[in-house]
Amino acid sequence: MTTVADNGVNVQALLDAREVLKGAPEAAQFTWRASSKWQNGVHTTITVKDFFGLGQEQAHKETSVFEADHPEVFAAEDGGITPIEYLLVGLASCLSAGVASVAQLRGIQLNSVEATVEGAHDIRGILGDPDVRNGYNDIKVTFNIDADASKEEIEALVAQSQKRSAVFDALSNPTNITVEVS
Amino acid sequence: MTTVADNGVNVQALLDAREVLKGAPEAAQFTWRASSKWQNGVHTTITVKDFFGLGQEQAHKETSVFEADHPEVFAAEDGGITPIEYLLVGLASCLSAGVASVAQLRGIQLNSVEATVEGAHDIRGILGDPDVRNGYNDIKVTFNIDADASKEEIEALVAQSQKRSAVFDALSNPTNITVEVS
Repeated sequence: MTTVADNGVNVQALLDAREVLKGAPEAAQFTWRASSKWQNGVHTTITVKDFFGLGQEQAHKETSVFEADHPEVFAAEDGGITPIEYLLVGLASCLSAGVASVAQLRGIQLNSVEATVEGAHDIRGILGDPDVRNGYNDIKVTFNIDADASKEEIEALVAQSQKRSAVFDALSNPTNITVEVS
Repeated sequence: MTTVADNGVNVQALLDAREVLKGAPEAAQFTWRASSKWQNGVHTTITVKDFFGLGQEQAHKETSVFEADHPEVFAAEDGGITPIEYLLVGLASCLSAGVASVAQLRGIQLNSVEATVEGAHDIRGILGDPDVRNGYNDIKVTFNIDADASKEEIEALVAQSQKRSAVFDALSNPTNITVEVS
């Protein structure tokens, strides 16, 4: 008797969406949004609720609210994680979602997927040293996965996830950003 | 009578840190971390607590926990914002922190700083189309700032913030990412 892998990912819906969007590229154009409100010092509150996609306005079921601040070692109040840590939150979750999706597609049952993401940051850049970059010098992701599969199959899941990860691409390749004052 | 601008940023501490770190570059090497645990489907829970910097282990005052998922239009449960939206959370807060810091340094009183960040994303990439990138096509930030300053001075604050923003750099320039399975 064969048990069917169930990681909770509706792979058929994603495969169907891919086919539909091939013939309707305009529906595949999403706009994700975040709104922020400065509190005091370097503390900002950020809200995420609505987005655009499939040709119309959409919304998450709930409004998500986030706090960003600097830690006390930067002479701040530590009212939330730092802005640059949010990038690691996104990277860990994007790669993990990819592992689950690819595992489902390949019929591999996952038991647990844990990851640690570490970003090396020379803070002399943001303090004004023109010879040091402001962002991360490099980022390292380490997965610890328990699945009904061989080590090689697990490594292949992670490799494929990386290949189709939105956040992995956004961090490893450049994106044009325009900043305006209204 | 002149009122002194107070945006709540301890600029003197940052200027002092810059001087100290010039002579102690090893203390400026920070490592930021996030740990994640897959829940089910594409839903992952991410925790941020400790980091390394100033030559030793450090920790935020509190543990921050985040949920990431896909929305219902992606046939998921919408148990949190999407991984790629976390990048916008980081960008909005980083640029806002920079505006507050630069305003403090320039003696400009801020009354309110709001921003909207929008990321354009063609989701055919993550669904497997090899001709479409996985990440954002472009990102747009719009600031709405009320400050005791001219339009030109406000625009200069935003420009300087952008120039020294960790997240702006991390998203607009490439970073090397290694992914391993332990």
